[in-house]
Amino acid sequence: MSDRIFGIHPVIEAINSGKTIDKLLIQKGLRGEGAYELIGLAKERNLSIQYVPIQKLNKLTRKNHQGVFAFISPIDFYAIEDILPKLFESGKNPLLLILDRVSDVRNFGAIARTAECTGVDAIIIPEKGSASVNEDAIKTSTGALFRIPVCKVKSLKESIDYLQLSGISISCATEKTDNSIYNLDFTVPTAIVMGSEEDGVSNEILRKADYLARLPMVGETGSLNVSVACGAFLYESVRQRILADNI
Amino acid sequence: MSDRIFGIHPVIEAINSGKTIDKLLIQKGLRGEGAYELIGLAKERNLSIQYVPIQKLNKLTRKNHQGVFAFISPIDFYAIEDILPKLFESGKNPLLLILDRVSDVRNFGAIARTAECTGVDAIIIPEKGSASVNEDAIKTSTGALFRIPVCKVKSLKESIDYLQLSGISISCATEKTDNSIYNLDFTVPTAIVMGSEEDGVSNEILRKADYLARLPMVGETGSLNVSVACGAFLYESVRQRILADNI
Repeated sequence: MSDRIFGIHPVIEAINSGKTIDKLLIQKGLRGEGAYELIGLAKERNLSIQYVPIQKLNKLTRKNHQGVFAFISPIDFYAIEDILPKLFESGKNPLLLILDRVSDVRNFGAIARTAECTGVDAIIIPEKGSASVNEDAIKTSTGALFRIPVCKVKSLKESIDYLQLSGISISCATEKTDNSIYNLDFTVPTAIVMGSEEDGVSNEILRKADYLARLPMVGETGSLNVSVACGAFLYESVRQRILADNI
Repeated sequence: MSDRIFGIHPVIEAINSGKTIDKLLIQKGLRGEGAYELIGLAKERNLSIQYVPIQKLNKLTRKNHQGVFAFISPIDFYAIEDILPKLFESGKNPLLLILDRVSDVRNFGAIARTAECTGVDAIIIPEKGSASVNEDAIKTSTGALFRIPVCKVKSLKESIDYLQLSGISISCATEKTDNSIYNLDFTVPTAIVMGSEEDGVSNEILRKADYLARLPMVGETGSLNVSVACGAFLYESVRQRILADNI
């Protein structure tokens, strides 16, 4: 696959040639001149490094990876601090989507597709625990990932602080509340937070949120696929914004 | 896989032992005493036979299939004519879901999961062109398929006739209309129709429907994954029914 490269010099070259690195894995305790050069370059470019045991790298390739493995992203990433002011300046009523460790590539792609269809202005994901933004994600999104900005952030908590200070209301989709989605007001500048497939939105984020809300559940299954739940949240915001003539 | 069997006598035994057959494929022009016995038995049990070229069977197994291949369903199927009167008698306001050739097993499973969470009373699928109701579908539905009746019908058209005569309003999700989903009244007895991944709801069904409606589309992608779109339709019906205190 062309979106995976390994070996110290191929990865250094990829970074220097301007490719967007989705994930950079470096073997724990890796030493040597090349390794130091790569680590320095990664820090210079603000790339986050995941230090992993050699076994993890050996699983990714049987070839000589020299302790270094990188996933190239087919899309560029944006900074939310660059995007949000422009949205306000252009008179838009921002609608943002935060994915707190949605890790399945197909879910991520389907969500990006829905987000683009519902006028989401940007998707915010954390560096750690998110699905790879790879060719499969692009395919499942039917290309929507090329048309909607994705912001990859070091700390969701800090990004949420920034959004709240900027006047964005943070609404988490969670089962840990009795409050119904239909009590929320999505006509204000809003970021909707969807949580991971395993354990939903993290408690840390739930504590920071302005609103927690759940979809009503009638049957016994008790939980939805995250891309379906996300679609229901986004379409409720579309409905309210159309009604308020604010879309 | 335990949900696939082949060979004339294994399939006859499966039918006789009461297993629910999801699909029965028989080689075109198959002759012989065993074949006639099987075909007679299938007709007696009202099973629909798909006559296929031998190449199709050869692709399913390299072993000696004797021109016969059957998929066993892990669930039982129901007749909508049995279910609907009971819903009315129990004072329920029916909400039904018709899937017009949704063929992807994961989409079908995700839709069944959402349907169970939103109080859908039954899912109606046509015998031909639907996803196999197999173990993968059960898994994707997280077991919801064991808790929601699935009706497999010979002709969707005739089932829709029956539903309309019984007072069910038929609403199709389609891009071939300017009418918004938010104009629909889901508080009346309703069947929502979702179409295939390839070409949506068939024209034949669109012509019979009481209402056509679309989800608003803001971006350029222009279409949603069918399980996401289905979720948005079902949650709009939940929202309206909660508001009308009619759920």
